[in-house]
Order: sequence, then C-alpha cells, then structure tokens
Amino acid sequence: MTKSALQIARAAYQPKLPKALVAGDVKVVEGAATQSVADQKAIQALFPNTYGMPIITFESGEAVTLPAINVGVILSGGQAPGGHNVISGLFDGIKKLNADSKLYGFILGPGGLVDHNYMELTADIINEYRNTGGFDIIGSGRTKLEEESQFEKGREIIQQLGIKALVIIGGDDSNTNACVLAEYYASKKYGIQVIGCPKTIDGDLKNEMIETSFGFDTACKTYSEVIGNIQRDCNSARKYWHFIKLMGRSASHIALECALQVQPNICIVSEEVEAKDMSLDDVVTYIAQIVADRAARGHNFGTVLIPEGLVEFIPAMKRLIAELNDFLAANAEEFSHIKRSHQRDYIVSKLSPENSAIYASLPESVARQLTLDRDPHGNVQVSLIDTEKLLSEMVATKLAIWKKEGKFVGKFAAQHHFFGYEGRCAAPSNFDADYCYSLGYTASMLIANGKTGYMSSVRNTTAPAAEWIAGGVPITMMMNMERRHGELKPVIQKALVKLEGAPFKALVAQRDRWAIETDYVYPGPIQYFGPTEVCDQPTKTLQLEQAK
Amino acid sequence: MTKSALQIARAAYQPKLPKALVAGDVKVVEGAATQSVADQKAIQALFPNTYGMPIITFESGEAVTLPAINVGVILSGGQAPGGHNVISGLFDGIKKLNADSKLYGFILGPGGLVDHNYMELTADIINEYRNTGGFDIIGSGRTKLEEESQFEKGREIIQQLGIKALVIIGGDDSNTNACVLAEYYASKKYGIQVIGCPKTIDGDLKNEMIETSFGFDTACKTYSEVIGNIQRDCNSARKYWHFIKLMGRSASHIALECALQVQPNICIVSEEVEAKDMSLDDVVTYIAQIVADRAARGHNFGTVLIPEGLVEFIPAMKRLIAELNDFLAANAEEFSHIKRSHQRDYIVSKLSPENSAIYASLPESVARQLTLDRDPHGNVQVSLIDTEKLLSEMVATKLAIWKKEGKFVGKFAAQHHFFGYEGRCAAPSNFDADYCYSLGYTASMLIANGKTGYMSSVRNTTAPAAEWIAGGVPITMMMNMERRHGELKPVIQKALVKLEGAPFKALVAQRDRWAIETDYVYPGPIQYFGPTEVCDQPTKTLQLEQAK
Repeated sequence: MTKSALQIARAAYQPKLPKALVAGDVKVVEGAATQSVADQKAIQALFPNTYGMPIITFESGEAVTLPAINVGVILSGGQAPGGHNVISGLFDGIKKLNADSKLYGFILGPGGLVDHNYMELTADIINEYRNTGGFDIIGSGRTKLEEESQFEKGREIIQQLGIKALVIIGGDDSNTNACVLAEYYASKKYGIQVIGCPKTIDGDLKNEMIETSFGFDTACKTYSEVIGNIQRDCNSARKYWHFIKLMGRSASHIALECALQVQPNICIVSEEVEAKDMSLDDVVTYIAQIVADRAARGHNFGTVLIPEGLVEFIPAMKRLIAELNDFLAANAEEFSHIKRSHQRDYIVSKLSPENSAIYASLPESVARQLTLDRDPHGNVQVSLIDTEKLLSEMVATKLAIWKKEGKFVGKFAAQHHFFGYEGRCAAPSNFDADYCYSLGYTASMLIANGKTGYMSSVRNTTAPAAEWIAGGVPITMMMNMERRHGELKPVIQKALVKLEGAPFKALVAQRDRWAIETDYVYPGPIQYFGPTEVCDQPTKTLQLEQAK
Repeated sequence: MTKSALQIARAAYQPKLPKALVAGDVKVVEGAATQSVADQKAIQALFPNTYGMPIITFESGEAVTLPAINVGVILSGGQAPGGHNVISGLFDGIKKLNADSKLYGFILGPGGLVDHNYMELTADIINEYRNTGGFDIIGSGRTKLEEESQFEKGREIIQQLGIKALVIIGGDDSNTNACVLAEYYASKKYGIQVIGCPKTIDGDLKNEMIETSFGFDTACKTYSEVIGNIQRDCNSARKYWHFIKLMGRSASHIALECALQVQPNICIVSEEVEAKDMSLDDVVTYIAQIVADRAARGHNFGTVLIPEGLVEFIPAMKRLIAELNDFLAANAEEFSHIKRSHQRDYIVSKLSPENSAIYASLPESVARQLTLDRDPHGNVQVSLIDTEKLLSEMVATKLAIWKKEGKFVGKFAAQHHFFGYEGRCAAPSNFDADYCYSLGYTASMLIANGKTGYMSSVRNTTAPAAEWIAGGVPITMMMNMERRHGELKPVIQKALVKLEGAPFKALVAQRDRWAIETDYVYPGPIQYFGPTEVCDQPTKTLQLEQAK
C-alpha cells in the first residue's frame, strides 16, 4: 500500500477513550429492565431471550487478565468513516484482556459469514488501517442475515474458529438483524454472543441512548468543506445557482447538518415537505420565489441543498409513482408497442387527472426515466432521478413564466452537484476516530462480560472524550413493529429529522435571513493537528440536540 | 460575515516571504535583455516600449520610506485559491514602503476598470480576507481589455484616483492583455504602469521563469482529497467504476497532477490522445481493455480520471464537430423541419462517411446535444458534453459486445463525478498562501521600482519560502504569434502537458501497474497546522519539473 504523508502522520494518532475504559477491565453497572419503544408485547414475544435486559454502563475497573477470547467482526452495508477504528478498538480491547485473544474478519459483509470467507486480523494488519477511512480492511456487503439457514451456516464457522462473539457494524437494518441473530443463538443455547455497532453516515440510527451513528460527523464535514468551496465560488463569480444533492437514503440529517455548517440560501428538508403535504410544484415555487427575491436585489446566484430522498417524501409524487407502477405492470405489452416519441402523451392520457397533470409537468428526461428505468420487480427507480436537475429545470420553467409576467427580473443559470461517495470513506475526523475506537473498545467489554443482543453505546459525546459514558443498550429497546414489503416486522425505529427538534428549529430560525442575505460560512477541510476549536468540534446537530 | 473556526484560526497565519523581500525595500538586479519565445520580430514591432526588457531579480535591500503610491488591482477570469493573498501581499508591500499608500480594487473584474466601479481596500477589509479562498473581496469577471476605448476609459479613473500602477491578476489571456495595456500606456507616456500576476488552477500558465500559476496547488490537492475518498469507497464496496472528470479548459495538468497524487487505475491525458491521433473508439477501447483485464482478476471496480477538454483533443471528433457546424449552419431551415425522432438518422445520412460513422456511434444523449445545444454563433458547444458519461456509456456498449465474444467476464457499473467548483475557491494551502502573498509583495516592489509590462515572478519554489527568488519577467518574453478567431495575435504561449516532461513520464512509468494492481493513494484533506511533510509539500508536478 502506497501511503500519503497524511496517512503516515495520522497512523500515529492514539484515539481517546472514555476514562472508564482506560484501565482495561470495567465494572458493569446495570440499570433497570428496559422495554421497547413501542409494540412491547409483540417485540417481547419475538425476543424472549433478549428482551427487557438492562441498560449497562461501565465504570473504571482494574487491569485484569481474562481467558483469551476469539471474536468475529462484520462490516455491513454502506461505508462510513471510522469503521477501521471500531475494528482497531475492538482488537485492542480483546488483546488487552488477553494477548492470545484473536480477531477474525468476515470478508465483504455478512455474506462472508455465510460463505465462510474470513481472515484473521493480526496486529500487522490492524496497524495498517488505524485512523483511516474506508471499509477496505475486510470489505463490506449488503447480504441480509435473515434466514435460519444463514444463521446455521454462520454457526458452523463460528464454532470452527472458536469464536465467542460476533460484532456486526451496521445501520438500523443490520443491527435489527444482529438482534435477531443474537436471539436465535441464545434460544439455541449455542453460547455465541452478538453485539451491534451503530454505523451510518445518514445519521438516522439514533435515539435516547445512541446519540449519533458513527461516520455522520466526518461525512458531513467533508460535504460541508466542498459545499463551502462552491459557495465561495458562487459568491465570487456571482452568476450561478448551485443545486447540490446530498446522499442520505431517506432522512435529511445530512442536508440539515450541512446547512447548519455552511448557511446556504436554501435547504430543503424532506420531512418538512411531507409534514406540510407539499407538492412538487410547492417545492419548486418555494425555490423560485427565493431566486426571484434575490434577483430583485441584483443577486443572480445562490445555493440550494437537496436531500437525496426528497421525491419519495412528496405525497403527490408517491401517488404518481404508485399509479405508474400499477399501470405499467398491467399494460406492459401495450406500452412496449408505443413509439418512444409518443410514450409521454400516451401515459398522460392514461393516468388519473391529478397524476396526469403532475406527470405532464415533469421535464422530459425525468418523465422518460420514470417509464423506462424500472427495477426487476417492474417498479420505477426513484433513486435514479436526478432530483437536483429535476428541481432546477422546473425552477427555470417557472421563472420563465414569471419573467413574462414581470415577477422575475434577473438571470437564472444552474450548476449541479451530487455528493455521496466523496465523503463516505474520508479519513475519520478526530471525533469519529475517538468515537469509533471507543465503540469498538466498548464492544470488547460487552463481550468479556458475556452480553448479547446489545448495541455498543458511547454517550455524553459533546463533552471531552475522557468524560464519555461507555456501555451497552439492549437492541430490543429501540424496536417497534413496522410494515416492510407487506409484512409486520420488528425493526429498529428509523430516526427521521424531527420538526420539533433543535437542529431543524435552528434552521427555521435563520433560513429566511440566509435566503436573502448572503451569509455563507466556509468550514474548510477537516483538520487533525490544529487548535481544538478547529479540530475537535462535534456536528452542529449533536451540539444542538445535546444542549439541554 | 459569519466565520468558521478554521477561518478564524487561519486568519492569524503570517505567510512566508522570500528573504529578499523581508527587509522592505529591495536591490534590483537586472539580467541581460530578453526576447520573445518565438516570432521575435513581430512581437518586437507590436511592443516597441515593453519588448526586450531584462529579467529582474530582487536582493535584500534596506528598509526605506518612499513616497506614497496608489495602486489599482483587478481579479480577472476564473477563481483560483490564493487571490486574496496576492492582494494582501500587494497591500502590505505598498504600506511598508509608505503608510499613506492606497490600494483600490476594481469590482467584478476588468469591467470594473472600464465602468469606474471600484472600492478602496483598507486594512480592515484586507484583514477579513487574509488566507481565505475565493475572489469575493472585489469579485472577478471575464470582460477582455482589448480595445483602445477601454484603455482610455481606464486611464480616466486611474488618473482620477492618482493611481501609479495597475496589477492584473489573471491567466494567460489576461496577462497578454495586461501587456498590451502596459504597452499602450507606455506609448502614450501616461506614466501608468501595469503588472501581471500568474493565476489559474489549470496550470497552463508556466514557462522557464514562471514555475507554476497560483491556485493549481490547492485546487489539485482538494480534487485529490475527494478522488482519494472515492477510491477508498471504490476499494471497499468493490462494485463500481468511477468516471471522474476534472476541470481544466484545455490542458490536462490537473488530471495528471491528481493522478500522480492518487494513483488511479486510469488517467486520460488529452495531449497524448492528440499526439497519438487516437480516435474516440481508441480511447474507449483503452479503458474497456483495462476494465476487462481487471475483471479477469475478479476486480469489477476502478477509477478513471478524465480531463475536461478531452473531446477537443481527439482529432476525429474535431473533424466531426467542424462538419456538423458547417452542415447545420447551411441547412438550418431544412433541419428545423425534421422530426426529433428522425434527426439522428437524418444527420447520419448527410455527413461524410468517416464522420457519419462516428456520429452514429455516439450515445443518443450526446448525439442530440451536438445538434441541439449550439452557441450564439451556431456552433456545437463541446464544453457541454458530459465526457465522463459519454465514455462510460461507450465503454459499457463495447464490454457488452466483448461479453458475447467471451472477451469480458465481469460486471460493469459506473458512477460519474465532475470536480471543478469544488476546488477553485478552497482556502489556499500553505504553499499557495505563501506563494500568492509573495507574488503580491513582489508586484509592489516592481511598482516601486518603476517597472511596467512585467509579470510578478517567484522562483525556486520547491525550496523553503525563505530561499525563493523574487523578481519580474517581461511579459513579452513569453509571447508568440497565434491565430485566434482567424487573426494572428501576440499571446502568451499556453503550456500544455509536455509528453517529454517529467510529470507525464512519471505517469507513463507507473500507469500499467496502477491499471491492474490496486495501489490507490488517499491524500486526505489539506492540512494547515501539522507536520511540515504533511502541510508544506508542493505539487508532484512542480517537484518533478524542478528536480533537475
């Protein structure tokens, strides 16, 4: 591996730990029994062995040597900065307990467990990856652990390698599956523990006990760096509106956090759009009005942040897509004989009046995409829609009409950006480096203390790392029953942006001013070596949420 | 202005100066008379007053107080990191000579001079912008100073403000115009000096005396940061080919520098494509072959860097576009009556066989763009082509054929990126902060010593800043005669990537290995406060070019 100068310098960084973990062993403090956030009876029935366990916090213990333990680790789903530090914290934790402990990594995600594809992670390997971004140490994958046959295939290799516990690093779905697996192994009395770790740049895996998912900090700071650069360009050239789409499957946490960091002219929040039952035209009008207001002041430039999942939060668009899915499925044969150039008119003529009008209003490229690019189940692929282009084209159309009516007096030219892969594998910020290492180290303590069905938890994260509170939260505590693919399933409640939450309120309090005045902030690149106020601040979201 | 923590911390940075400039005044050392790089007689005839002047270097002088001078400054063309430091260096330079000196900024580029749109840049204003990115202190613009009427309008405001010298911060064209203006004012004996400063992220304004243009360092490092992050993602998820287009009007310096920093699987260099007379299909085949070779080893992922100007360097594409321009101009009326769905077949039937075949091979979206989106002169707008998508679509088509023939055994899925605005206004790296400040300070010394028609020059830039050599280079020395819009004009020779140069050779020496092995480097974000090997390295291009 050829290393950059920063990688070499950064390898020497020793992540900070909560002081309870520094000694080595810990005292386990158990709270009262817990219950799930909703649907308690149903969840309890599904998880008889792992339901109701207490919240655990660790206090300083004494350095002890325990028997050696073998542990397996899996990276599940999309990359997030800091995954390597979770693994190195876990490694250091089990090695501190006993130098003969071993860590096995399953290759390319949960599939590696099922397929018995693994490697031992030795000190030499771990040292190559400390404080680096990416999941390339063992790779990640999206295989879902849901079937008993997978659990049993996993058991085979786990027992073969003498593994005591499995750590699954993933998002809400992966942690749900970790809990199902923990319950299964507990019910079978296999003596195999399963521990989860909260990973996702999307920021939607959080609750009372999990303050933030790892990677959110670094990813948002990286996006904010480049958005800040674009804003400085925007404010220098003064001739473009930049439409910037930000990754985040469904929740708008990333767009909101970036907005709080960079103070753009406009930030759309999907959860608000849904709550207000806004139509696509409402969103377009909202943007166009700000463009027109700025133009009236001679400012024909600006920035718009757009969450990736927006289209699926617009109720009217959801209805259009649902009808399109049904219609195209029922009329596939007839549709396939319609000439390409007539397809749009054909669809317009067939849909219900409300959906027909929306479909007719879409730019040609989007309209075509909605009928052509369907997934293997015949469904429209909403995620392929270039929402940033869709909005800017519709804003341009509206402004052209307003221009004729004398309601818009400026120029409108747009540039488009989409940021996702640019930040998911950035080298972790000091916060994520410390937080991830602590999560991994905490997982080792949960394992040493015989816990299963827990998620590694590190709280009080806006304080200095020494004051962080390490422990474990029963995964069942975060669950409720939700309908997925037509079936009621126990799942970890996804944390969308709360409209009554402090971060969104902070946006609302300032956005009208940001819209008209140009008050861009330029956060610049993540710094690792400078003054603490530059290097060690958590996200604005976390600061606002924890400031009680 | 709301400031980020980094902005506040960075404001305190004192850029380093060559030691000759530290004392305040300088000793001027004049070299021998110079001549232009080519077309000496023609250039001399056009620039009788500013031709043949000596190269100047500054040596340490004593701190002296000179009479106060008023100076005007203009930011011309696209943004580049460090422009604000050129201005603050210039400001500090003239203030050190005399505290009553004044600096005026012309607003939104050269147009500000012509329209008498200006502001005084006081210490309070300057201090807000030290070590920041962007050109927002006075804005930039693309008005070209070419007409005598503009020169005279400029003279009016210059004389009104008592301005002794004008500093034009710009690229090759702006510096050419600075020299024409210097010559004009000299011929009229107005006593107005004009000094140029070498700005452009594109890196194409360099020669024997100008080692690098400012902004190239920071922009390339910012692009390399995000490309590195994408590569880490690529190497973790192992399922996408990322096609990454990089800004740079025509030269491929940015793509080449980024390639040397991140070691991608593929980097296309336009200058090589042209020199080898490669067709679009040759470029596509080159990429597809590497995709197939990696797939044979089970690696269905990779990265491709593409310079923005590529299409215009493919000789066959240039011929196609030329014929399209002529054909569409001559047949505009007939073409306008062709149904959209028949336009492609119509064009294919009308072009010469060679161009027809190429046109027919283009993906539909590009083919349509080439006939629809024309500029006000009726010309095809090559710059609107999404080259990264064009290439990936054609690679996909080729691989599908190879798959049927058994020559490709893998999967191919692509993601697309274009980086430009993400880096042009980044806060300057330590290198650019120092280099720009030194260029501005040097300009003040050229002014104090009565020079005109010079470009501010700082050399020996791979050494520590104290050892840099400051001085001035006659702009005429860099000129030759080139045909522009049908007319022979004196212009600064544009520096394209030299195929016999050290940076390109370094790529060639390693690219076959990078193609097959995955040896990505992850440079990470620009650091300002860490160890010198992390914070203070110049670009690979500069290091390789200066290592003699």
